[in-house]
Amino acid sequence: MHILITGSSGFVGRALAERLQSPQCPPPLAGASLTLLDVSAQAQAAPGCRTITGSLDDAATVRAAFAEPPDVVIHLASVPGGMAEQHGALARAANIDGTLRLLEAAQASGKRPRFVFASSIAVLGSDFGALVDDNTPLRPQMSYGAHKQIGEILVHDFSRRQCVDGISLRLPGIVARPPAPAGQLSAFMSGVMHALAAHEPYVCPVSPDATMWLLSVARTVDNLLHAALLSLPAQDTGLALTLPALHVSMAQLCAAVAAEYGACLQSLLRHEPDERLQAAFGRYPALHTAQGDRLGFVHDGDVPALVRRAMRKDVNAPSRSA
Amino acid sequence: MHILITGSSGFVGRALAERLQSPQCPPPLAGASLTLLDVSAQAQAAPGCRTITGSLDDAATVRAAFAEPPDVVIHLASVPGGMAEQHGALARAANIDGTLRLLEAAQASGKRPRFVFASSIAVLGSDFGALVDDNTPLRPQMSYGAHKQIGEILVHDFSRRQCVDGISLRLPGIVARPPAPAGQLSAFMSGVMHALAAHEPYVCPVSPDATMWLLSVARTVDNLLHAALLSLPAQDTGLALTLPALHVSMAQLCAAVAAEYGACLQSLLRHEPDERLQAAFGRYPALHTAQGDRLGFVHDGDVPALVRRAMRKDVNAPSRSA
Repeated sequence: MHILITGSSGFVGRALAERLQSPQCPPPLAGASLTLLDVSAQAQAAPGCRTITGSLDDAATVRAAFAEPPDVVIHLASVPGGMAEQHGALARAANIDGTLRLLEAAQASGKRPRFVFASSIAVLGSDFGALVDDNTPLRPQMSYGAHKQIGEILVHDFSRRQCVDGISLRLPGIVARPPAPAGQLSAFMSGVMHALAAHEPYVCPVSPDATMWLLSVARTVDNLLHAALLSLPAQDTGLALTLPALHVSMAQLCAAVAAEYGACLQSLLRHEPDERLQAAFGRYPALHTAQGDRLGFVHDGDVPALVRRAMRKDVNAPSRSA
Repeated sequence: MHILITGSSGFVGRALAERLQSPQCPPPLAGASLTLLDVSAQAQAAPGCRTITGSLDDAATVRAAFAEPPDVVIHLASVPGGMAEQHGALARAANIDGTLRLLEAAQASGKRPRFVFASSIAVLGSDFGALVDDNTPLRPQMSYGAHKQIGEILVHDFSRRQCVDGISLRLPGIVARPPAPAGQLSAFMSGVMHALAAHEPYVCPVSPDATMWLLSVARTVDNLLHAALLSLPAQDTGLALTLPALHVSMAQLCAAVAAEYGACLQSLLRHEPDERLQAAFGRYPALHTAQGDRLGFVHDGDVPALVRRAMRKDVNAPSRSA
């Protein structure tokens, strides 16, 4: 088994690559050879693991990635929200051209690989009713979401034409990202967790009643590996689905972190809501993910479990039993 | 006023260019300078009209088209349904890369032109309920429809970012195309009209009760010009809408052509339904186009009027009063 991961130096990519090389890797994937592709230079590869540094919109890079055709492609690479708004051409090259080039290389390999595309809840936009479910129309409000929606359409079309065996997973807010800024406007969700865990003061840019959809990075890796192995019925080929996630208020999240780490919220936390961030990331309603549930995708269960899993140094301990 | 038309040698493009240069052109557009762009060589240009032969995914071609930045872009060029299924890379280059390149050139011009994108009812797919309206989810079943949906998303995103002032119109079946094959699987809709008008026998690949959404080419030109001039409220910028169209059965269409031309259906017409064409093009349900109606777009009124307008040699006589 050979697995190609794009965006392998990113937050989710690193956790995924580590899990695949850890003793906790589920049996059918344990011992798989890995190709890790990223625009950033990568750590020295372990045995059975090949690294490629380059951009997806570069033909030679993608050719190199497919030198040994993969059985599974997990496509995480993208230029995220804030950066995509500021750098339209860069985002277009990575998010649209890159995804197309990858799908075309997968097609050319003739292997019809499982193609797991990391989409985003950004495809849904931010102008919601009282509930979001699998029938909620997609109305992306940022280029990032528009590009992810385009990716979903391409994955479906290449799957329909039997070029790949694709599935798109819409990732919610993934916590807890490392503090380094990576262009995500939603970085505050992780920022507040790190600060409170370290008993450091934090000015939160959304109000306590701001609501989010959250998933720990460990559960995200669980879901990506589940998608890599899942047997999809014919009518679901190329399907895009919203991953299960916890519907959490900022107050609930902060209380759970404070409880876990014995932090005093009153002395550490202040709220100075930024209207733009509040509108884009703080008004998520109840979420029903019937399709994801049916296919066996999972969220963290409850907020304390989310916090424990999100903040664990070893994100790759087996999290299904956590 | 300067108008750039892509796909200007196509069926709709020619009718549009002719109307813009005819005495029947509506006042604000009369006398506009035209740039006509097509991959096919074009007829000698009239005064005030510039022609460019080349592909939209060629940077130099698009630069030439924007040498004098247009106030209005009417983007008709695309690789259509049947051809797109067979030639994925060609279709991707024309339909996705070409549309992106055009939008980026429009953005770079700094003029925020009106950008009219000819989308297609192919974005809706072919698996319908009893009614299609503005809330019907998009589920394209062919690459052509997927590419058009991607174009709609891009037009919306570039409009949201104030790079263009865009609108996407989903064109229904446009009749009556010239007999020459151009890759449209739906060419039979026009084929049957031409044959019956000429009192020639025709084997129709869908059954008499097959239902379609049809618009005459003259009305299509009316609607494109309406879109070029329409003042869009801010909340509608980048809007995609389904054009009003007549919901017509093949039996109704044939009867109307026969009545107009005194043709004997019994002796001329035979039906040999092709299951694939019937499924893709013969099961259109009732159509409600509230958004299009509200914004002043129009269909042909009734089937006899559709036939008269569609079959007229001079498609550019003023059709609003026809």
